[in-house]
Amino acid sequence: MANSPAASTPVDASTLLLEPLEAAIVAAIRGNGPLSRTDLSAHLDYSRASVTGIVGRMVGAGILAEVGEGKSAGGRRPFLLDINPDLGYVVGVDIGATSVDVALADFRGRILERIAQPADVRGRPDEFLGCVADLIGDLLARRGTASTAVMAVGVGVPGPVEFAPGVLIAPPLMPLWEGFPIKDFLRARFPMARVAVDNDVNIMARGECQAGAGKGLENFLFIKIGTGIGCGIITNGQVYHGADGAAGDVGHICVDYNGPVCHCGNQGCLEIMAAGPAIAARARARAEAGESDFLAARLAERGMLSAVDVGDAAAAGDRAANEIIRQSGRMIGGVLATLVNFYNPEAVFIGGGVSQIGHVLLSSIRQATLRRATALSTRRLRIEYSRLGEDAGVIGGIWLALENAFTIK
Amino acid sequence: MANSPAASTPVDASTLLLEPLEAAIVAAIRGNGPLSRTDLSAHLDYSRASVTGIVGRMVGAGILAEVGEGKSAGGRRPFLLDINPDLGYVVGVDIGATSVDVALADFRGRILERIAQPADVRGRPDEFLGCVADLIGDLLARRGTASTAVMAVGVGVPGPVEFAPGVLIAPPLMPLWEGFPIKDFLRARFPMARVAVDNDVNIMARGECQAGAGKGLENFLFIKIGTGIGCGIITNGQVYHGADGAAGDVGHICVDYNGPVCHCGNQGCLEIMAAGPAIAARARARAEAGESDFLAARLAERGMLSAVDVGDAAAAGDRAANEIIRQSGRMIGGVLATLVNFYNPEAVFIGGGVSQIGHVLLSSIRQATLRRATALSTRRLRIEYSRLGEDAGVIGGIWLALENAFTIK
Repeated sequence: MANSPAASTPVDASTLLLEPLEAAIVAAIRGNGPLSRTDLSAHLDYSRASVTGIVGRMVGAGILAEVGEGKSAGGRRPFLLDINPDLGYVVGVDIGATSVDVALADFRGRILERIAQPADVRGRPDEFLGCVADLIGDLLARRGTASTAVMAVGVGVPGPVEFAPGVLIAPPLMPLWEGFPIKDFLRARFPMARVAVDNDVNIMARGECQAGAGKGLENFLFIKIGTGIGCGIITNGQVYHGADGAAGDVGHICVDYNGPVCHCGNQGCLEIMAAGPAIAARARARAEAGESDFLAARLAERGMLSAVDVGDAAAAGDRAANEIIRQSGRMIGGVLATLVNFYNPEAVFIGGGVSQIGHVLLSSIRQATLRRATALSTRRLRIEYSRLGEDAGVIGGIWLALENAFTIK
Repeated sequence: MANSPAASTPVDASTLLLEPLEAAIVAAIRGNGPLSRTDLSAHLDYSRASVTGIVGRMVGAGILAEVGEGKSAGGRRPFLLDINPDLGYVVGVDIGATSVDVALADFRGRILERIAQPADVRGRPDEFLGCVADLIGDLLARRGTASTAVMAVGVGVPGPVEFAPGVLIAPPLMPLWEGFPIKDFLRARFPMARVAVDNDVNIMARGECQAGAGKGLENFLFIKIGTGIGCGIITNGQVYHGADGAAGDVGHICVDYNGPVCHCGNQGCLEIMAAGPAIAARARARAEAGESDFLAARLAERGMLSAVDVGDAAAAGDRAANEIIRQSGRMIGGVLATLVNFYNPEAVFIGGGVSQIGHVLLSSIRQATLRRATALSTRRLRIEYSRLGEDAGVIGGIWLALENAFTIK
């Protein structure tokens, strides 16, 4: 299998614009690994002769490569086809509130170089993205290649995105980014690259779908629990964005009409009741009320408490910490039961920073979901932590780039 | 445009099995009306030469027909292509708890003959479906044609369906139907027909999508309010079934953890709190408490009250009736707000028997939804009554048949 560095001479970008059937061939190989022409014919429900013709063009254009021989079905052993990894580079960018993670990958999605760095998303987008472009440049320099070798960039951002133009809409964390032309900015630095932008939880769902526990699944949910709570929706193996790109905004689902006021203006949103800051605030209250020696000691030591501290306390057997985590798990599971009844997914994967606080959270989410969802919609449902963990975002960014590498300009 | 009766000589069913691109041509014409070869080339993003070749085969096989001339773009006026309506007959069957509605249509989905009849779904499925087959036979006799002219049947049933095999799973209303091979039974009577089965609200959603207010929309919800409450989900113009065919089971979403016990065993399900029987029960209580002269008089006259009586009372300005309807609307709208935040649909259409009780229900559903859903997910959201009303089911059955006429055996 080819493992050489990507071509440093620019590829003719027009060869990357695929017809629908060619795109279906790429998708079948990405989903199943290397396939023979006969396999592809069966997958696509097309005659072997048609597939052979199309594959011929794609091998000629350098999109597919023959990578070895498969099993014989009686006669000559068939050649297997895979994506040509050396078609150029793709870049995944995972922008968090306080950090940015950038990875350079080949056309099979394998990470070649990677860098992570603290960063403040609240500042000017041109400055922030200028730094991101410099980081990409550093990674390219490690491979000894030029910016023209970047064929596609996928960017995840912590805010609501209108997907087609790739701009943020009223992002609470990063107001200066509203409407900023992220695609144009990055294209000015990487002239051969197609650029796509999506929100952070959608790219995590995409990562889990292509390279994590969601591989091979058609329909699942990815719940991110951190400072907020969001959901990525995979439908027929693709991220579902909804009419306005707002699909999956589950953090503002009401769990208590008389609950505390959320930053969105409503009362009792899931996010204000159950996410990281709520866990930390309940921990502080319990520590100050003398109900947890562990949390009181941690508070005295550090002057503040986080969800991670509560996880540490729970792991040490602290009762108050366990109760706090179960309380969040019950609220999240209650909302999840509603979503499972409605959407009947094959699986729900839980990720984000707060998902690192231990198994009590997962088990209480599971219990609350199973208690209120219907028997039919849960009979085969898996509820698990994300397999990719903190890497889901940057891996999803790479796959967002790959998904669009062949289809948009 | 051809308007002759469908061919009474059997069509070669193998010609109806389409390759993916042919199926895309059929879908483009169904969604947009008659198209020229140039239009199709633009719609499918395929070369005009490829499209012309494929269209040639489809015209030859009698699937497409040239139906007139379109507008000229400078040169010769192009021929428009439409589905050949005379390819055979399709049948839509809408099975309700107490009635069945059967329609015979051509391959463009135009209803040619129709019959509705009281029926009890609680009995034996073979007897029930035997009557349905006889009704179809009566409609065919009106056209002077044979059972072999039926090329596809689409059946809607009031219970959970596993879509691929087309069988009911643990249907509360019709336990004797559990696992009954509906497809095989009907194929024995209509040997040329492809048969597909889906639940009642999914076929209503499909009807609204193809021939009602949902025409041209990609993503919307259809909420049926009757004895129960269910939801059909349209994703990318297709019905979304979920992992187990259970998607859209919103009647058992919890609205009150301390509410009355539902037949599913849980407490405070939306359906037990807000559907037709709950409206009727609250009306009876208000009438018996002397809080509504209108409802008390209606109760004395008929010995019982239904949701329709409450609608009549509200229309006559009865305060208690208006309060009862608003209470249901608020609960339904509260759940809808959650679904809108999650799914971000373009529209929500409300149908089913209880939707006939007047505009107060719709306005209170709207208010409650807008009050709790996010600004972004509601900025363009339409919430309306179904345009097809009581016909949504049988029209959806026809379109279910058409959808599968070309694709499954």
